[in-house]
Amino acid sequence: MSQVLRKFHIPQLDSASGTAAKARQDTLTKPRGSLGELEVIACRLAAIQRNPRPVMRRKYIVVAAADHGVAAEGVSPYPSEVTAQMVANFLSGGAAINVLARQAQAEVIIIDAGVASPVPGDTTGLRRAGAAMPTRASGNIARGPAMTTAEAAGLVMEGADLASELVDRGADVVATGEMGIGNTTPATALTSLFTHRDIADVTGRGSGLDDAGVAHKTAVIRRALSINRASASDPLGALAAVGGKEIAFLTGVLLGSAERRVAVALDGFISTSAALVAHAIEPRVTDYIFACHSSAEPGHRAALDHLKLRPLLDLGLRLGEGTGAALGMLLIESATRLHSEMATFEQAGVSGRPPAARPPAARPPATET
Amino acid sequence: MSQVLRKFHIPQLDSASGTAAKARQDTLTKPRGSLGELEVIACRLAAIQRNPRPVMRRKYIVVAAADHGVAAEGVSPYPSEVTAQMVANFLSGGAAINVLARQAQAEVIIIDAGVASPVPGDTTGLRRAGAAMPTRASGNIARGPAMTTAEAAGLVMEGADLASELVDRGADVVATGEMGIGNTTPATALTSLFTHRDIADVTGRGSGLDDAGVAHKTAVIRRALSINRASASDPLGALAAVGGKEIAFLTGVLLGSAERRVAVALDGFISTSAALVAHAIEPRVTDYIFACHSSAEPGHRAALDHLKLRPLLDLGLRLGEGTGAALGMLLIESATRLHSEMATFEQAGVSGRPPAARPPAARPPATET
Repeated sequence: MSQVLRKFHIPQLDSASGTAAKARQDTLTKPRGSLGELEVIACRLAAIQRNPRPVMRRKYIVVAAADHGVAAEGVSPYPSEVTAQMVANFLSGGAAINVLARQAQAEVIIIDAGVASPVPGDTTGLRRAGAAMPTRASGNIARGPAMTTAEAAGLVMEGADLASELVDRGADVVATGEMGIGNTTPATALTSLFTHRDIADVTGRGSGLDDAGVAHKTAVIRRALSINRASASDPLGALAAVGGKEIAFLTGVLLGSAERRVAVALDGFISTSAALVAHAIEPRVTDYIFACHSSAEPGHRAALDHLKLRPLLDLGLRLGEGTGAALGMLLIESATRLHSEMATFEQAGVSGRPPAARPPAARPPATET
Repeated sequence: MSQVLRKFHIPQLDSASGTAAKARQDTLTKPRGSLGELEVIACRLAAIQRNPRPVMRRKYIVVAAADHGVAAEGVSPYPSEVTAQMVANFLSGGAAINVLARQAQAEVIIIDAGVASPVPGDTTGLRRAGAAMPTRASGNIARGPAMTTAEAAGLVMEGADLASELVDRGADVVATGEMGIGNTTPATALTSLFTHRDIADVTGRGSGLDDAGVAHKTAVIRRALSINRASASDPLGALAAVGGKEIAFLTGVLLGSAERRVAVALDGFISTSAALVAHAIEPRVTDYIFACHSSAEPGHRAALDHLKLRPLLDLGLRLGEGTGAALGMLLIESATRLHSEMATFEQAGVSGRPPAARPPAARPPATET
């Protein structure tokens, strides 16, 4: 790995808090295990926060945007200018992620990690990463690298710095989101590389390609992986070679959040490609990640399987922006509220674990497995 | 069908509003179809509400509770008194459904549809259905019917009356929930009957049976269906024979909500058994139902398949109370918020459907299928 990237020190989960949370779950007024995945979430969040009563009040959604030279190869039905236009839409509150952030009571942070066109309108609130980069957009990976390894390292570290800043501001969870016309192409390249799946198996329609478009995109990705000689054993090099600038930034957000013991709500396919890179850099990062949904992109499930992450939702979303993560945060919040607010059997006077004297016909509760 | 049940007049969905909603979806700043199931929800809700901009502000969760004589056969690890104790827990706000209702900003309505034991503590707010029934609990279906057909019809109509009352109070959605020790047993009997699946294929662990317990429960259900001679072609008779009183009440809530053109957020296995009965009485009811989750009970998926309902969530929940429905309501609300609050391509100045002049390499968007 390039020497320019600093080391990330991700702490182990606090198993004592996880165990204490499990013990509490088993005192709540419900059959053991009957809240399914929500119980698992509460216990993992306890281990992340080192708190048997984890909280999820302060929520941030980081939306990193960048352009991609590879869009010139015709891998997306939309022109590159849409990236800047959508950044303007984020800033004025009209995009899907703004709507869902309002519902989840989360703050959206918009990052220009490499947007090529000028962002129209009032750009107050837009933060710029990689200020020193000579060109803004990610390079065309079908003809060369997306960026230099120094640029990749810089963006990763800026992403981690942002995560750290949000933790200082009290973040209980950080969600990932992105925007970048053409970015399913680098995400697919990274997914194929790190999951060792064939490119054709993980390439999908992106924002709306037809069959011929998908075949063309597959060929473009094959060329990108071939000419850039990316390797899974050099994750920073792979990120620089066939990744993208918003993906680099999000890689840092993931590593930085985990380093500060804060949970991440992971969005869809593009965000998960950043998780693949982050995991290759520091495997423990996935302990802190909640995969919020399984997207319509075929490569997404492969990436989640590789990371051993089980998605909370499967609604056929393929928008990105952090929309799946925002929905997932609602459920993670449900899990923490149930964990903290439900009455125990003792408090409610409910016969949860009846002692010896029981009706003769009743059977003992099954042991949880 | 018994003559004591009134006819339910469920209107057709308003396809014009559904079509108008779809047209609006295609102007919002996202690739067409990229919000997946959330777009489908918004359009169906438009057709339900006869409003191209459907709303989901006022939410009610009806939790109907009843006891089951069949609990004496040892089909649940919990004693029957837990039903009344949990009703007290609902009333004091400590149960899972109370927590989730607070998050969803929904009002919980608790119905005693046949609770055998006295409800401890302050019962202010508890509503009683079937006041004229000589015994409160549902009869032991392993030895006779759960109730008379007159009682079943009365509970169905009371459930429909409650739905109508909630609509008068401004309900945009009504969610179903229930509590009743032993009630997976009648729900399984109804599921086997209406889906024509073998009892063993649809019988599960309920609140926590072991393998021997499941085998015993299967035998009890087989006996119940055999001695009561229930038939899918007489849904009210089947409900009275092998159902339960809370299931009867919820059947009415479903029919009454649909009759008043109000969407239903359907909870898990027990609620879905009520939907099977309601659908057999008046098939159009399912047009108004959103299946919120797929529970851990094996019969649930069979029931949903029979009703052609696709669940929104699959989190391994098996608690009931309306918990899955409350979570699903969060997502239905997301769908309506996105539909109403997102900017259009025109409003945001985003190049959504670029006209003739496009970059030469870019491909046209694929036609949505």
